[in-house]
Amino acid sequence: MTQPVDLVEVWRGDLMECVHQGHAVVCDGSGDVVAAWGDPTALIYPRSSCKMIQALPLVESGARLSDEQLALACASHNGAAIHTDRVNAWLRDLDLTDDAFRCGPQMPNDRTAREGLIKADEAPCQVHNNCSGKHAGFLMLAQHLKAGAEYHEIDHPVQQACKAAFEEVTQEASPTFGIDGCSAPNHACTLHGLAKAMAFFASAQDRSDARSQAAVKLTHAMAKYPELVAGEGRACTELMRAMGGKVSIKTGAEGVFTAIIPEKRLGVAVKIADGATRASECVIAAILVRLGVLNPDHPATQARMMAPITNRRDILTGQIKPVAALHPV
Amino acid sequence: MTQPVDLVEVWRGDLMECVHQGHAVVCDGSGDVVAAWGDPTALIYPRSSCKMIQALPLVESGARLSDEQLALACASHNGAAIHTDRVNAWLRDLDLTDDAFRCGPQMPNDRTAREGLIKADEAPCQVHNNCSGKHAGFLMLAQHLKAGAEYHEIDHPVQQACKAAFEEVTQEASPTFGIDGCSAPNHACTLHGLAKAMAFFASAQDRSDARSQAAVKLTHAMAKYPELVAGEGRACTELMRAMGGKVSIKTGAEGVFTAIIPEKRLGVAVKIADGATRASECVIAAILVRLGVLNPDHPATQARMMAPITNRRDILTGQIKPVAALHPV
Repeated sequence: MTQPVDLVEVWRGDLMECVHQGHAVVCDGSGDVVAAWGDPTALIYPRSSCKMIQALPLVESGARLSDEQLALACASHNGAAIHTDRVNAWLRDLDLTDDAFRCGPQMPNDRTAREGLIKADEAPCQVHNNCSGKHAGFLMLAQHLKAGAEYHEIDHPVQQACKAAFEEVTQEASPTFGIDGCSAPNHACTLHGLAKAMAFFASAQDRSDARSQAAVKLTHAMAKYPELVAGEGRACTELMRAMGGKVSIKTGAEGVFTAIIPEKRLGVAVKIADGATRASECVIAAILVRLGVLNPDHPATQARMMAPITNRRDILTGQIKPVAALHPV
Repeated sequence: MTQPVDLVEVWRGDLMECVHQGHAVVCDGSGDVVAAWGDPTALIYPRSSCKMIQALPLVESGARLSDEQLALACASHNGAAIHTDRVNAWLRDLDLTDDAFRCGPQMPNDRTAREGLIKADEAPCQVHNNCSGKHAGFLMLAQHLKAGAEYHEIDHPVQQACKAAFEEVTQEASPTFGIDGCSAPNHACTLHGLAKAMAFFASAQDRSDARSQAAVKLTHAMAKYPELVAGEGRACTELMRAMGGKVSIKTGAEGVFTAIIPEKRLGVAVKIADGATRASECVIAAILVRLGVLNPDHPATQARMMAPITNRRDILTGQIKPVAALHPV
């Protein structure tokens, strides 16, 4: 990895206890870098931050999808009832059951759902996997393509379609791929490429081709249903709500975050070198504030950009904050 | 913070997805640096990695303590029954109840204990706090000193005794302190100072003063009861077991790890700059292997030093590994 720069400081008392380094890029509709911290050429896995790209072939297939389904296809959800009920209904529409998934089971992040499973001595299903909406979309596309059941394999038509879409919107030939937590391939790109892809979504309203139309639908669905994209208490949900549906954002594992800002035709991509979510959330909030689309004083902003660190007795012991280079201009 | 160096790589497929930077120092009984990575002068909070230092005044007080109690005083435990039963018994011996604690409640990390609380719709108590053994020791010392109930406050005789012990064994005047997750003060020191302190413990067998005798007892108790210092599945417990009781090690929040190696009179201190536990565990295992006290092929070693990354279907997707500079010589 190319040299990252300091982006986030973690303070306890009057000592900086930790520092998070990384890279961040803001790109316009023509793919030009508007602002950058660290190295835009850093090669990364976008992980779940690129789910809206992976959903493009599904929308382009002409499948009938509600906005809720589109939001779930882009989601890393909490496995709450609002998510699993809708994904299960989607499965039933496809005449499939949980066994058709290839994402694997995951204990839900949602407290009510998790404690419900524990109290019932039940193991989580694959529908509880935070990626089950994306996988429902993969299954739907596989049916449409009349392709086989192993839709997660790299040479399956579904994944080949996802790769083609990924390479087009990032404007890069992906040099390699990794296997994600949900068993789907995740294609590598530069951080600049990921920001270009987000700018493709942000500027899609200006174009009339099928891919751009699909991008508009997905961007709109994410911003319309922020609670389906993540869940109560989560950064994606709370920050999208704070921006009143004008901006779509998406977290990814190992410190990735993306943002689509249609009103400014800007795309944003963030990668924390050490993979820390507390840092990627701080950086994306700081950049959205700098770009004038997120209120710095909103509680959801403060909770990420200037996150208090409290202890087991709720005593304030420290704070997470962006470096000066990320402060509002 | 001074400039850290790359210590741990996180790979997925054939791409390095993340990197963790930090500092590490190995010190001998005279306080000299035997080996170092990064900057030994980096100022850090040792967090829970210095609990054996915080227990010195308790042992020196002459209080009657079992080896199990000494191990618990040094522990960041899982809140399993083996921990909470013993700490509750200790409280009863002191004629105190859970209310006397000032550490705050914490949901246990131990699955059985945690799910038991959830199934019973019960909130965790302060005894479940991973630091409750340390706090039981604080309470016992406070009784011995006939001091007040607010034993966690910086000017309380218990904390003043802890600070004096800390400054003596680190051979530094601590420039500042932070409030820890358990509300106790945590004094800052250089990483070199923390390694000196561990070397003080490792070489204590060669001296006959009261503090050194207390250090020998604590080091011995930790290695004798590794399951009380952390818990099943945890790095401290499994790695101490793998070393057959010859080495005492202790994790701390925000990427700190310490080791006491009596047979070599060596102390080790590790700090990951971004605070990641997966990285501090990898580095301490690698250093213990380099020093010839940990078998590189032991499953507990492999699980930290070359940790596999698997996904929700248990498919191997990546690996955590130390940089070349940490490989065995």
